[in-house]
Amino acid sequence: MRSMKRYEALADDIAQSIRTGVLRPGDRVPSVRQASAGRNISASTVFQAYYLLEAQGLIRARERSGYYVTGGAQQLPPEPETSSRPNEDSTVVDMSDRVFAILESTMTRDVVPLGSAFPSPLLFPMDRLARAMASSVQKLDPWSSVDNLTPGDAQLRRHIALRYMIDGVQIHPDEIVVTNGALEALNLCLLAVTRPGDAVVVESPTFYAALQSLERNGLHAIEVPTNPREGMDLPSLERVLQRHQPKACWLMTNFQNPLGSLMPDEKKRDLVELLARYDVPLIEDDVYGEMYFGARRPAPAKLFDRKGLVMHCSSFSKCLAPGYRVGWAAPGRYVQSVARHKLTTTLTTSVPTQAALAMYLEKGGYDRHLRQLRHTLAMQQTSFIQAIAKYFPAGTRATRPAGGYFLWVELPEHVSAVDIHRQALAHGISVAPGSMFTAAHAFSNCLRLNYGHVWDDRIDAALATIGRLASSQSSH
Amino acid sequence: MRSMKRYEALADDIAQSIRTGVLRPGDRVPSVRQASAGRNISASTVFQAYYLLEAQGLIRARERSGYYVTGGAQQLPPEPETSSRPNEDSTVVDMSDRVFAILESTMTRDVVPLGSAFPSPLLFPMDRLARAMASSVQKLDPWSSVDNLTPGDAQLRRHIALRYMIDGVQIHPDEIVVTNGALEALNLCLLAVTRPGDAVVVESPTFYAALQSLERNGLHAIEVPTNPREGMDLPSLERVLQRHQPKACWLMTNFQNPLGSLMPDEKKRDLVELLARYDVPLIEDDVYGEMYFGARRPAPAKLFDRKGLVMHCSSFSKCLAPGYRVGWAAPGRYVQSVARHKLTTTLTTSVPTQAALAMYLEKGGYDRHLRQLRHTLAMQQTSFIQAIAKYFPAGTRATRPAGGYFLWVELPEHVSAVDIHRQALAHGISVAPGSMFTAAHAFSNCLRLNYGHVWDDRIDAALATIGRLASSQSSH
Repeated sequence: MRSMKRYEALADDIAQSIRTGVLRPGDRVPSVRQASAGRNISASTVFQAYYLLEAQGLIRARERSGYYVTGGAQQLPPEPETSSRPNEDSTVVDMSDRVFAILESTMTRDVVPLGSAFPSPLLFPMDRLARAMASSVQKLDPWSSVDNLTPGDAQLRRHIALRYMIDGVQIHPDEIVVTNGALEALNLCLLAVTRPGDAVVVESPTFYAALQSLERNGLHAIEVPTNPREGMDLPSLERVLQRHQPKACWLMTNFQNPLGSLMPDEKKRDLVELLARYDVPLIEDDVYGEMYFGARRPAPAKLFDRKGLVMHCSSFSKCLAPGYRVGWAAPGRYVQSVARHKLTTTLTTSVPTQAALAMYLEKGGYDRHLRQLRHTLAMQQTSFIQAIAKYFPAGTRATRPAGGYFLWVELPEHVSAVDIHRQALAHGISVAPGSMFTAAHAFSNCLRLNYGHVWDDRIDAALATIGRLASSQSSH
Repeated sequence: MRSMKRYEALADDIAQSIRTGVLRPGDRVPSVRQASAGRNISASTVFQAYYLLEAQGLIRARERSGYYVTGGAQQLPPEPETSSRPNEDSTVVDMSDRVFAILESTMTRDVVPLGSAFPSPLLFPMDRLARAMASSVQKLDPWSSVDNLTPGDAQLRRHIALRYMIDGVQIHPDEIVVTNGALEALNLCLLAVTRPGDAVVVESPTFYAALQSLERNGLHAIEVPTNPREGMDLPSLERVLQRHQPKACWLMTNFQNPLGSLMPDEKKRDLVELLARYDVPLIEDDVYGEMYFGARRPAPAKLFDRKGLVMHCSSFSKCLAPGYRVGWAAPGRYVQSVARHKLTTTLTTSVPTQAALAMYLEKGGYDRHLRQLRHTLAMQQTSFIQAIAKYFPAGTRATRPAGGYFLWVELPEHVSAVDIHRQALAHGISVAPGSMFTAAHAFSNCLRLNYGHVWDDRIDAALATIGRLASSQSSH
């Protein structure tokens, strides 16, 4: 567990309790004396935490009585409870055009980016990264541009291996292939273990890029029911393994896009063992793993890998350096195949960019940045959930992920998220309708919302607009 | 035509005449008075040129008599004259492992890199690039990391379009997709126009990465005879178009890898028209086009494209910024498809790297660098050809490309280039045996040599060793 300032840790815990409904609007938060004694921290540290929560509008002081959770009389929306129920059949994927139409309509700077896949770039240490880049590029050995090819910069791979080690996973730097973001890592892993016509297991709902990759490679998708809290349903997965002989399983264990689900560590172990019994490789997309709101990083499924079947993919794009396009794969027994596919598709990852990230990691400051990022995202989630409670129609459900920056919203059953997408865009707001996340016809009443942008009146107004659009459909 | 210093232009012309055999060893070069009058330049400019050629060992002064071409009594090796004769059948590609084994054996810094695919990084303005990178990254708009995605940095695309325009090709910046080097551009173009099982026309011999791409995508290769001077044979291509209905033709028009062939501009026009009649897209790899030794840049086939069927691919990796991994495609009517494939495979190209190159191009100095690079490469080629004449066995032939940095050497028929590769490696020297450049069994007595590394005693000794190895096989 990495240390965080004590007052931040306390504030985080209380915010999380509010988010999960353990503390409800109107509840009294622990007294300063209680909190100080219970955590063995000074009263002034507790006050610091409470001032922070007060500044964020999460609690309010009542004279001579203590601090109380705000939020008026609102009830927070309930969480979606049941897993999706796709038919578990193999599907030819044909949804790319539909997704592109939505993506392209939202890629302009003046839209309120609730449908965006990226968090706000203002949350990242762009200045420190720029200094690391400026410094490292001037020291760059010219020969590194010729012979420092795939698998990638040795110092960068060493730092990545070090972070694995801190999280309890033993990965040698030579087992790591640096890529152009996690997306390339995932695609190379898919190339390494499939041939056109094969079937691949994905979540339902799943990240649309997974479906686009399957489509491009002539692969069939088998969508497996996925629980909004705990990820892919393992009994369903086992039925699919028996019936379809898939060549890979591609999923997100931590803070899944779009649900925000977090697979418990024990379940990850079961997942890895189940797949190993059928000798099916797991392509694990773990780009959100560092953005946890709890006390420590959730494990990657890779931690439980005994047979080299888990191909763990991650990047710095979501948590440190968007736009730098540096990710990696730790693909177990497939490392040579992944490296060779990299050599024949993009040869290598930008050498000065890799060197810049290696220098940034060498200098320290990444963990401090991550603590602040997690804190900010957790607070922004709280604000989003409260706004959903305030503005969205009765019957709305929303996930409360313990990390990442995506919320999954289930609107009342007959509301069309695609209609909301279209209408919201006319108001200068983007949302991601649920239909983007499946090759089947499902999730038509669902939205993915990005809470990775700094909370302000513009976002509050945007959520009010979306709520109004949904209510107006809902009341018909 | 871009201007170059007058004395350099004169020196280049004379060097080229020596390279092509117009001036032979012992021939007198034009007198200072002739050259001065003929070109309307001062005598001191002519002297500057002759001093340069003398320093390079290409000419020598004889007292009171003028300057003469050196090289003793050596004859330069003849050029290979005939085109290859592959069977023009469609072949399932299965050569990647063989190529990787050779590539991996040569990727260490202490080997004399005659088999390398890259020129020496010492030939590039790494300091100026570093300054551009340091300066641009500190000015980077944070939002550019989120919304400046594919097709790529607008300023960079503007500069690329500007360079097309200077060469007479009208390409709008919106028709350009920035990629991770030309290799990704070529692969995305291939994805845009083929499906597994399709046939694709390539040269014989061809760049091995083309064959690896076909192999990865489950495509069949049709290898078409290719002339060492003028590139792909068009009557053979037409037979293949009639017989096989290929879905694309992938080739290098300028300074082909591995032959160094340059397709004459008129033949490029014929090629484009021929493919247009059969409605077959041309994937044009033009990464060496800027490295011409003549008076002006040879045209890309794209210049003659009327139907949007030519997908022109190039990069800055070979001529400016190795390791930065910035290339592009100008894929005509397929631009949207290429951009979408880019979005789903690697999302976008490193944003700070693109910005750095845009700033370098904005500041000027690229053309000055290119002039110097061309000059250096032309001189190095002369040294290589002379060394081949001196060291290689009788019956050796070698191409004399008018640009780029690859020579194609045909050794006597029964010499095994793979054996030479293995033996040379034991001497710390890499070469690229001809068998890397075909999916068939051919070119077993051929080598590709890289003259893109600064000529010195080590390279001279390496060529002597290769010559000795070849002679020893040749005399058995």
